Amino acid sequence: MLLELPEEKVFKDPVHHSIYVQDLTIWKLINTPEFQRLRRIRQLGTSYLTFHGAEHSRFSHSLGVYEITRKIISQFERNRYADWPQEEKLLSLCASLLHDVGHGPFSHSLEQIFHTDHEQWTCEIILGDTGVNRVLREVDPQFPEQVASVICKNYEKPIVVSLVSSQLDADRMDYLLRDAYFTGVNYGTFDLDRILRMLRPYQGKIVVKESGMHAVEDYLMSRYQMYWQVYFHPVTRSSEIVLRQIFRRASELYRSGFEFSFMLSPIRELLAGSITLQQYLKLDEAMVQTTFGQWSEEKDELLSDLCRRFLNRKLYKYVPLLNEDKNWLEEVRQEWRRIGLNPDYHMEVDTPMDSPYDVYKPGALPDGKEKPPILLLDDQEQLTEISVKSDIIQSIAGLHRGKYYIYYPEERVIPHAHRLSSETRKKLSI
Amino acid sequence: MLLELPEEKVFKDPVHHSIYVQDLTIWKLINTPEFQRLRRIRQLGTSYLTFHGAEHSRFSHSLGVYEITRKIISQFERNRYADWPQEEKLLSLCASLLHDVGHGPFSHSLEQIFHTDHEQWTCEIILGDTGVNRVLREVDPQFPEQVASVICKNYEKPIVVSLVSSQLDADRMDYLLRDAYFTGVNYGTFDLDRILRMLRPYQGKIVVKESGMHAVEDYLMSRYQMYWQVYFHPVTRSSEIVLRQIFRRASELYRSGFEFSFMLSPIRELLAGSITLQQYLKLDEAMVQTTFGQWSEEKDELLSDLCRRFLNRKLYKYVPLLNEDKNWLEEVRQEWRRIGLNPDYHMEVDTPMDSPYDVYKPGALPDGKEKPPILLLDDQEQLTEISVKSDIIQSIAGLHRGKYYIYYPEERVIPHAHRLSSETRKKLSI
Amino acid sequence: MLLELPEEKVFKDPVHHSIYVQDLTIWKLINTPEFQRLRRIRQLGTSYLTFHGAEHSRFSHSLGVYEITRKIISQFERNRYADWPQEEKLLSLCASLLHDVGHGPFSHSLEQIFHTDHEQWTCEIILGDTGVNRVLREVDPQFPEQVASVICKNYEKPIVVSLVSSQLDADRMDYLLRDAYFTGVNYGTFDLDRILRMLRPYQGKIVVKESGMHAVEDYLMSRYQMYWQVYFHPVTRSSEIVLRQIFRRASELYRSGFEFSFMLSPIRELLAGSITLQQYLKLDEAMVQTTFGQWSEEKDELLSDLCRRFLNRKLYKYVPLLNEDKNWLEEVRQEWRRIGLNPDYHMEVDTPMDSPYDVYKPGALPDGKEKPPILLLDDQEQLTEISVKSDIIQSIAGLHRGKYYIYYPEERVIPHAHRLSSETRKKLSI
Amino acid sequence: MLLELPEEKVFKDPVHHSIYVQDLTIWKLINTPEFQRLRRIRQLGTSYLTFHGAEHSRFSHSLGVYEITRKIISQFERNRYADWPQEEKLLSLCASLLHDVGHGPFSHSLEQIFHTDHEQWTCEIILGDTGVNRVLREVDPQFPEQVASVICKNYEKPIVVSLVSSQLDADRMDYLLRDAYFTGVNYGTFDLDRILRMLRPYQGKIVVKESGMHAVEDYLMSRYQMYWQVYFHPVTRSSEIVLRQIFRRASELYRSGFEFSFMLSPIRELLAGSITLQQYLKLDEAMVQTTFGQWSEEKDELLSDLCRRFLNRKLYKYVPLLNEDKNWLEEVRQEWRRIGLNPDYHMEVDTPMDSPYDVYKPGALPDGKEKPPILLLDDQEQLTEISVKSDIIQSIAGLHRGKYYIYYPEERVIPHAHRLSSETRKKLSI
Repeated sequence: MLLELPEEKVFKDPVHHSIYVQDLTIWKLINTPEFQRLRRIRQLGTSYLTFHGAEHSRFSHSLGVYEITRKIISQFERNRYADWPQEEKLLSLCASLLHDVGHGPFSHSLEQIFHTDHEQWTCEIILGDTGVNRVLREVDPQFPEQVASVICKNYEKPIVVSLVSSQLDADRMDYLLRDAYFTGVNYGTFDLDRILRMLRPYQGKIVVKESGMHAVEDYLMSRYQMYWQVYFHPVTRSSEIVLRQIFRRASELYRSGFEFSFMLSPIRELLAGSITLQQYLKLDEAMVQTTFGQWSEEKDELLSDLCRRFLNRKLYKYVPLLNEDKNWLEEVRQEWRRIGLNPDYHMEVDTPMDSPYDVYKPGALPDGKEKPPILLLDDQEQLTEISVKSDIIQSIAGLHRGKYYIYYPEERVIPHAHRLSSETRKKLSI
Repeated sequence: MLLELPEEKVFKDPVHHSIYVQDLTIWKLINTPEFQRLRRIRQLGTSYLTFHGAEHSRFSHSLGVYEITRKIISQFERNRYADWPQEEKLLSLCASLLHDVGHGPFSHSLEQIFHTDHEQWTCEIILGDTGVNRVLREVDPQFPEQVASVICKNYEKPIVVSLVSSQLDADRMDYLLRDAYFTGVNYGTFDLDRILRMLRPYQGKIVVKESGMHAVEDYLMSRYQMYWQVYFHPVTRSSEIVLRQIFRRASELYRSGFEFSFMLSPIRELLAGSITLQQYLKLDEAMVQTTFGQWSEEKDELLSDLCRRFLNRKLYKYVPLLNEDKNWLEEVRQEWRRIGLNPDYHMEVDTPMDSPYDVYKPGALPDGKEKPPILLLDDQEQLTEISVKSDIIQSIAGLHRGKYYIYYPEERVIPHAHRLSSETRKKLSI
Repeated sequence: MLLELPEEKVFKDPVHHSIYVQDLTIWKLINTPEFQRLRRIRQLGTSYLTFHGAEHSRFSHSLGVYEITRKIISQFERNRYADWPQEEKLLSLCASLLHDVGHGPFSHSLEQIFHTDHEQWTCEIILGDTGVNRVLREVDPQFPEQVASVICKNYEKPIVVSLVSSQLDADRMDYLLRDAYFTGVNYGTFDLDRILRMLRPYQGKIVVKESGMHAVEDYLMSRYQMYWQVYFHPVTRSSEIVLRQIFRRASELYRSGFEFSFMLSPIRELLAGSITLQQYLKLDEAMVQTTFGQWSEEKDELLSDLCRRFLNRKLYKYVPLLNEDKNWLEEVRQEWRRIGLNPDYHMEVDTPMDSPYDVYKPGALPDGKEKPPILLLDDQEQLTEISVKSDIIQSIAGLHRGKYYIYYPEERVIPHAHRLSSETRKKLSI
Repeated sequence: MLLELPEEKVFKDPVHHSIYVQDLTIWKLINTPEFQRLRRIRQLGTSYLTFHGAEHSRFSHSLGVYEITRKIISQFERNRYADWPQEEKLLSLCASLLHDVGHGPFSHSLEQIFHTDHEQWTCEIILGDTGVNRVLREVDPQFPEQVASVICKNYEKPIVVSLVSSQLDADRMDYLLRDAYFTGVNYGTFDLDRILRMLRPYQGKIVVKESGMHAVEDYLMSRYQMYWQVYFHPVTRSSEIVLRQIFRRASELYRSGFEFSFMLSPIRELLAGSITLQQYLKLDEAMVQTTFGQWSEEKDELLSDLCRRFLNRKLYKYVPLLNEDKNWLEEVRQEWRRIGLNPDYHMEVDTPMDSPYDVYKPGALPDGKEKPPILLLDDQEQLTEISVKSDIIQSIAGLHRGKYYIYYPEERVIPHAHRLSSETRKKLSI
């Protein structure tokens, strides 16, 4: 069942100008409570504390991914490429729209603490007792399983998986453009139209015409720049550290039987490690912030201090660490104890390298875990992995620039500066 | 005390590219909890339910207003205009930064229900026991009163009031550009740089060089277009109606002694009409949304239904009303009762004309309530109110196009369509 | 014969991003010498002397008009509107591409002096012995006549004429956007995509859905602003006056038998009023400028001075004239003679009202001369002329703001200032 | 003598929005005939035949370079950096405005044929009997020599030379942004404001704060992309080949005593190798195009054919050459002769590597010939050449991707295809 809407629906979008919805199924999916919930989850987590414009939601990103996918398929159909299976259009559109529907508030940070996985939630939402599942089942009883298998990368037609998930997929293209637009940095812009025009379905893969190589170079350079200017910005890292510490402390307290003066149901089950799908769907950033607001007056001083820090943006200061500083860190822990600070909370060492991001991985295999590499199709119909032909990409692919930083509450250290070693004072510039 | 920061601070801003902070006082004000709280309050209230990009906060708008004011003063200083009192710079900057600090969540809607006034809260925050007040008092013990008097439009030097508040002020210029940028519409753009270059301090007022008239026409046309395309969009009005109904219902229930299963302190005092400054400062949109989430399962069916509508964006449908439809409305109320709906909630008539917005008012007097009109300064140093010279502005100024709409829950009416009069069915197109 | 190109051709265009050519006929037309010649004729004539970016050619504008027309037709086809005759696609595209092919260098100025008409030249190029004609005849022997009749507005199907020529046609939409882009002013921007989405073929006309009214208002305001900021800019008018004076003087000299030291063939025939099509096609701005360069050293001092003024941008100064100044003008002529200036050349009074431009004419009739008005189509399928529903457009339509200016060579007047009357000195501010 | 204008002059510029002129000397320089002449010389030579928007002139670029330099100096003055000699402001502004004033029509192509050098012409214009020289001498009799020495890179204060000419100078920054804007490609954009904010005067050099490294990477990537997408575009190369062949042929004819039916004075002296400054100043693109128009009917068939090709954009076709094709080229020469073509004109091998462009040269020495490298200034006030710290720049700096192409008149070869070897037919795909 592929029902067209009597009249095309248009969403105004600052990045793509307009987003066009022609299928009734897409329209109904957008209007499910599970999808509307993405309005209450920011695309960039705590980055708004660094870039005040970065308030955009996963709702708008998901629509953007859908729109790029729609444009790619529309190009394939217009040119009647034989390698594109036209009957997979609705499946591809649904998978691209829903690929992030399992995200919760501040996912990247919370997943580290609670060992959950948004992709698994995505599949549960698609397959469980939800509005999304009901809309998909109207198409066909097997349709939810198909959508989930595309997102989990084991659908039987690899070209559909390749369309929805690769190192040059609609997801990455939308978030680079969108995050650049809302943060206001200049780095994430590249020629989307040109790249879309260069994509070709070819033998079960989505590949790029060789004449589009420079446009892809530009896209990967944007990606590289966005990592260092936006995604790995140390102020954002600092806010994530505070956020994780709040949940770490709350978990400790919960396990030790602490009586919280404020505790909403899904937060309790999150701390207890027993959260169900229906509870998970109630979690959003509003609830996390409201909880932090209430915990700002909780009796546990560590917890209340961390919550106030997060809400009032009194984050930890950061100082870069050199390789040879590693021994010094143990000393700092002792000094911290000496001046009455808790080294398990009041200092944290962080490197962006523990991150899910990679600018580009030439060797990535489409094994269901890694996103496949970018392939160029030349005039002789030969495929070549792009970093073989592009020195720029070769050089970006191998880069490892992660800087180590130490984060700590500066204003609590300064009053005790005279009790610190001269090495510590020098390294912290106090 | 006008302390410069050792190094200029720069905020990345998508609208103005960069926002420059040079004064320590401005820097400290931005870092107060009261100002950081504006991050949790959207500039456009419920408009994000119509334009998914409109997630931007009053925090970013306030910085933008500050930045435009800084640029205007900097132009005045560069050209050494005699009519500009240079010693008022910091006062002007603080007033422009803080002019919206009293806004709460969804202010325009909530002020209608609870008869509060964000401008009054602004003054309480500036004059009360707050971080903002402490920072201002560091400048001078009288400084908080001065800042408040500029915002309340009774400061002794009218030119400072005119700079911060007029029909062509930094507030309006920033919000038009910002709202256009984040919604993604094309209408709000005008030539900010040209207007800023044309402003002149003159005999206690900020006026515009006559050669800037066309740029001002363009600005007012942007304003006009934004009202009809964005601010008065019927979907946004529908979401505001649902929001106001929630608070109206909650107030009724509160007064009748209903036992809410979830109630946080400032919400309770809001309903009780006894909210204090410290409680008000805890209110934010996260708390409102979290409360709605909890009330979605409240026993009162009307309240829980409205909350679910708001969160899941199941808003009321709207149909335009003609003048001659007014008699019919009473009939509808009766029909609604007949089919089991509550006419006090399940229908609402709305016109944008009850709104605080006006495109331009030529006759507005600077009496402390209305924003003064725009004056052109010609080569003979004569001042003329702009609509006298501009036919375009003359025509915009007199416009009253407010359309009446009736809003109602369509899906609850349709099953009973056969019981409605043919007139009603025709008017509602069912 | 509607041959498709084996592969779509794409022109990079700063205004429309890309321009797509799919038909072989269009591709061949672009590559004719007559069309390539448009590269050597600027879209805005002498405006580059006011706005240095305005160097763009009629070639790029013609491609832009083609592209907008292509997009409109593509929207009609996608929605399968019954009122659009699909078989007229190629005819419409050719007419839109070629509508300006008869323009010569600085057309608007030269047409005033030599009483020629670019539209007539367009038809001669289409129907005469040219590359354009040969390409069109390959489609069908009658095709050139059809294309010419669309451009001359007497083609049998009025909807094709209405598509190519109206007050909201692709020509006007492209030049507003393009002229704004290249001059760098902010005024000419409007929401092209939205307007294109709102166009409908309806009973032999192209009309606008009523919900697009605000977008059309915005388009007409852009038009209004562009006239006053760009098209009627007094510096541009000054350069046009100098240009026309050069040709007026050269004609006088030619008629009086003056021996020019430099004279190329088509210029001679232009002065003689006997220019043929083949000669006309050799005229371009390069030839005009080269001729001016040579005439800069011609013996006739008036001619050589004017040519140097044009090339070195030593234009005439301008001062606005009031209504009551008309009597004074005769005095100035006498004073000019007294101080040795030639009042037939060294002063000129100009008003933009003698111009081919109109922001909008509600009463224009599609009589083959005037461009038809803009009609709104409402939900009841009623058509209404737009200024009836839009107060803004009502007010723009009636505007007559043309200012009179007097232009004169300031540096030749100043040395004799003491011999001028005090009234003249005051009016000229010398 | 540094006279300020009574009122700042503002040029509207599409790239920098506004260009501000505050000094009377700058204003007068812009109004000299030599500087106005730059309006008649395109910034990108023949590139408009590939990118139809690329009609912008060296006039607008020169203003842009001036404006960027003005902004840099203004930042230095605002921050009162000790290493910046404030008295050199006017000198720096004049040198940046005038650095390209010696360019003639299609300089890069013509300099190859006639072995002239635009930098030398720049110095002659500054030092010779010109309007530019007279304006500069009003400042100080030594001032012209000083301006020339800055442009020739031997001025006594190296920091002024470094400001005006380096691998990150105002010239390169303006042309990348401007060429991207007018061609309409997306590649040339980078964050100009951020780079300008990161520049520091330091010990006789202009260096970059280390935290600006990523912005400089982005700038160099833009440069890299612009080379391959715009500057080295094979269609542009083809038009340059035709242009050079015209002048090569005309020189041959001139030397052999051919009687040209049309020949203007500076063209004659250009061919004769005896052109003077006053003659050079009369050369512009209009004259070159007019001459080509006249030569289109010259008796020498080779010359007239080349001129028609250029004007009607019937350029040579191109096919990439592989390294192993070099032997084959000699065969082609023989085949060409066999089918009646002239191998000295009807084929040409070209590689972009013979070009004045380099993306970045880390080892460049400021020896008066090469532009100095980009240095990063870290927190310890250490300077490091940027490619040492940036892997991206390291990789760009070493790139040599120049492809060889063979260019030839396809339509003259095809009729004889059956007489060509199968190897030739295969390589030319005919």
